[in-house]
Amino acid sequence: MTVSAELVKQLRDKTNAGFMDCKKALAETKGDLDKAVDILRKRGVAVAAKKSSRTAKDGLVQSYIHMGGKIGVLVEINCETDFVARNESFQQFVKDVAMHVAAANPQYLKPEDVPAEIIEKEKEIMAGQAPDKPAHILEKMLVGKLNKFYAEVCLLEQPFVKDDKMKIKDYLNSVIANIGENILIRRFTRYQLGEEL
Amino acid sequence: MTVSAELVKQLRDKTNAGFMDCKKALAETKGDLDKAVDILRKRGVAVAAKKSSRTAKDGLVQSYIHMGGKIGVLVEINCETDFVARNESFQQFVKDVAMHVAAANPQYLKPEDVPAEIIEKEKEIMAGQAPDKPAHILEKMLVGKLNKFYAEVCLLEQPFVKDDKMKIKDYLNSVIANIGENILIRRFTRYQLGEEL
Repeated sequence: MTVSAELVKQLRDKTNAGFMDCKKALAETKGDLDKAVDILRKRGVAVAAKKSSRTAKDGLVQSYIHMGGKIGVLVEINCETDFVARNESFQQFVKDVAMHVAAANPQYLKPEDVPAEIIEKEKEIMAGQAPDKPAHILEKMLVGKLNKFYAEVCLLEQPFVKDDKMKIKDYLNSVIANIGENILIRRFTRYQLGEEL
Repeated sequence: MTVSAELVKQLRDKTNAGFMDCKKALAETKGDLDKAVDILRKRGVAVAAKKSSRTAKDGLVQSYIHMGGKIGVLVEINCETDFVARNESFQQFVKDVAMHVAAANPQYLKPEDVPAEIIEKEKEIMAGQAPDKPAHILEKMLVGKLNKFYAEVCLLEQPFVKDDKMKIKDYLNSVIANIGENILIRRFTRYQLGEEL
């Protein structure tokens, strides 16, 4: 089938994937935009998994200052080569992540970084909210609630503030798939003026 | 005595103190620049001590990115009012501190922040270098060496990179004396691309 350029553009805007990849995904799904997004995301995850063993020591340290100095963010995002560090879509990703951290205030990079005692506390609170449920139901509820908790506090699990249909990790995977290098968000710091430490 | 405008300018450049304060200090020391610097510094320390109990919750979060993204610094510097946060010499101080942190890579804000085990380790190394000295001599040597160590690793004790005759704490005290508000360097973070964590 023929895929309209307008549809390809929409898919590119949603996924940051390349033109040919978008066209192919849309042909595969017979023009279904949402399914094409899924295809590209899975591809991104697959490419990202393949790249993730490679050393990424280059990249950029960048900052974002919000409201003339009320909030500040510092991020380090790594890639494998200086060449990619100067790539425009890599730099846009770095900017977007810094801006996102300023707006969404994540506490951790990924679920594995959340301290065990905080997860235990969350579990207790959740269990207390449904004390009379059987254990196997409770377990399922806990998984769902923990995922919701991670989506609130973990940068990679948060919906991207500029496009909440996409998690930050989806955005990351799409950049990896496009650029073809291992890329990782290594660390971030966020200061809010006058906040309790 | 008459103090030349050129001399006043030199003193102002060295201390950031106001015009009248510099003129007075130079008159007092009969034009001796170094002694006038001392007078103004002591005055800065005195004013700073008086202001230091006052709550400083306003201020600025600012960043400094070095070498197009190889080093990044985030600082929070507090003052008491939004009015001072918009003051030019306050803003210059914030910029200078961020730039200084990028260049001088301090590990701690002040000597009290250095963990006890690190000081113990430093003491052991120092004692090992002079094993046959009597205890009271060793004690004196240790004090001197620890001060040197603090001047290497503590931001407030480091010589300011743009003027190494002045420590960062001297610069801070001069800004407090000029502006007349409590000002404090609250925290800083420095990222160097690819460094070991």
